[in-house]
Amino acid sequence: MSRFLHSRFSSLEAYTPGEQPRDRQYIKLNTNESPYPPSPSVLKALTEGDIADLRLYSDPEGTVLREKLAGLYGCLPENVFLSNGSDDILNFAFLAFGQEGAVFPSLTYSFYPVFCALHGVDFETVELKEDFTIDVEAMKGRGRLTVLANPNAPTGIALPLSQVEAIVASNPDHVVLIDEAYVDFGGESAAGLIEKYDNLLVVMTYSKSRSMAGARLGFCLAGRGIIQDLEKIKYSTNPYNVNRLTLKLGEAAVDSDAYFRRNAVEIMETRETVTAGLRRLGFTVPDSRANFVFIRREGLDGGKLYRSMKDRGILIRHFSDPRIADWNRVTIGSPAEMEAFLQAAEDILREEGLA
Amino acid sequence: MSRFLHSRFSSLEAYTPGEQPRDRQYIKLNTNESPYPPSPSVLKALTEGDIADLRLYSDPEGTVLREKLAGLYGCLPENVFLSNGSDDILNFAFLAFGQEGAVFPSLTYSFYPVFCALHGVDFETVELKEDFTIDVEAMKGRGRLTVLANPNAPTGIALPLSQVEAIVASNPDHVVLIDEAYVDFGGESAAGLIEKYDNLLVVMTYSKSRSMAGARLGFCLAGRGIIQDLEKIKYSTNPYNVNRLTLKLGEAAVDSDAYFRRNAVEIMETRETVTAGLRRLGFTVPDSRANFVFIRREGLDGGKLYRSMKDRGILIRHFSDPRIADWNRVTIGSPAEMEAFLQAAEDILREEGLA
Repeated sequence: MSRFLHSRFSSLEAYTPGEQPRDRQYIKLNTNESPYPPSPSVLKALTEGDIADLRLYSDPEGTVLREKLAGLYGCLPENVFLSNGSDDILNFAFLAFGQEGAVFPSLTYSFYPVFCALHGVDFETVELKEDFTIDVEAMKGRGRLTVLANPNAPTGIALPLSQVEAIVASNPDHVVLIDEAYVDFGGESAAGLIEKYDNLLVVMTYSKSRSMAGARLGFCLAGRGIIQDLEKIKYSTNPYNVNRLTLKLGEAAVDSDAYFRRNAVEIMETRETVTAGLRRLGFTVPDSRANFVFIRREGLDGGKLYRSMKDRGILIRHFSDPRIADWNRVTIGSPAEMEAFLQAAEDILREEGLA
Repeated sequence: MSRFLHSRFSSLEAYTPGEQPRDRQYIKLNTNESPYPPSPSVLKALTEGDIADLRLYSDPEGTVLREKLAGLYGCLPENVFLSNGSDDILNFAFLAFGQEGAVFPSLTYSFYPVFCALHGVDFETVELKEDFTIDVEAMKGRGRLTVLANPNAPTGIALPLSQVEAIVASNPDHVVLIDEAYVDFGGESAAGLIEKYDNLLVVMTYSKSRSMAGARLGFCLAGRGIIQDLEKIKYSTNPYNVNRLTLKLGEAAVDSDAYFRRNAVEIMETRETVTAGLRRLGFTVPDSRANFVFIRREGLDGGKLYRSMKDRGILIRHFSDPRIADWNRVTIGSPAEMEAFLQAAEDILREEGLA
């Protein structure tokens, strides 16, 4: 830290992204990336002319892509906002809508409290139930920006849409943000409710099901008022925040929507195989609707499992939060990767005298 | 605006980017883009494998590109910070270093007051002298974040490095940010001073001289403390804010550094031709060290000139600021584009009975 930094950031703890070690090739199951490449039409979408045109700024309104996404989700382009990854949208939302504070589950995407700290948003958390499900009643009517990842991270557990709607309806004077980063892996989207509730903000991403984490493209759906607010923040920070190539690739991805939905089905099938395999090995694995599973094995320290996997060339995600020290989050990779992971799990249990 | 927006943003006026009308093909001299494509090696840099790898997140540290830029500017990678366009860095800097307020010239990049309004940074402005040059004495020792575009926008006028250094040295306990978006067109960079002054922050961009506005890549050079602060803000908002393709293209651009420097020389030569031509037509044109000229013609309303040019298919930039209502900013395009622009200027003057 320099001596020039604003004093309110002196104790700010930034978010820690999943590690990206370069000492060897890993089976990378730690950042919820897709094992599949983007669609064939995305792979072919860029021409040398597109690279030459990089001399020109991108369309700050993302006109074409917003029209396509509106078509896909059955809304109007004015209900769609694009940004440089969904983290960017979450950041804007905490800044724009957190005046009276925020509330989110006590165990969820660990970036939410960082946004609050950055923007001075006072936040409350709602304890999860013992089985890691959301306490829906406790999330209702909190009179502040309400943020819900559905499916939730790092548990993978999803709420049915009826319960999401009940939370949205209970808080009509504040924004309810549903973070649907993982919704395409078996969750129910609230996208269809944006016309009914002007306080609903549904955030989605190209990083997971659409296999485009490295392109940085997030979008959200909401009523016109919320979208205008987000645009105001964007035009006051970085108007051209989505680059030309990403816009074009994003358009190609919408045009090949069926491709990524097939991949999502593959990943869900692999997830069911992995879940069954882990349970056979004695792991506790909540039912996941995401492209990861959250796992714990009685008698095996979570940090120990993480390190043993890393020694074997497999990266999984272990969190510093002491409440989940026994747990690890494991991304669903390809069937071959997950076979290697299950074999490694069995080997580790045997080494530890647990199998 | 929705009823949910934080009240401190209700009167926020966002930045207005240059217009991008789609009603016809324009000669686009309104957003300071380069008339030349990126270098041949940039045009060839991306493979289908790079697109396939978009399933993976980008390297949040931009390790390879930072090493290359450090080599180019003779500093260490720890002195380099990358972001999603230089606006992104400016935004972070006002947030991080504006605790005791900010100061900048009264006529400069019109985004600075927007960042201040967004982050609640109290700002002062220093009047330009009558010839639009910076009042260096008045910029010294202001005891707050000091921001200086050099060359300045929209005037194009540059300060010599000795005067920039005097401003940096006069304000040792606050950051002095030099916005060098246009420095490659004949300005003197302060990059060589970052070791000497721990309060100096030099911001640069790929958008102008490097012909990559649409790729969104900005970077800055500073002492390790300031860079760490900017990283803390980035990791608290959007850690992967530079996408994979832009990182790779940015690396190729550094490798072909001579290409863009040749283009900058071409643009400077065209600028001198345009300046001479405009002066022959009776325009006032301050000496520019940027890829644009700032122009005024006695007897011709600035808005009228802007509209007459647009009618002829030529976009130039007219600002709503009443102090410069008589002026327009004109990007230096290709020689052919500028010939068309000069011809149009002559035609307009004749129509108005001024030639």
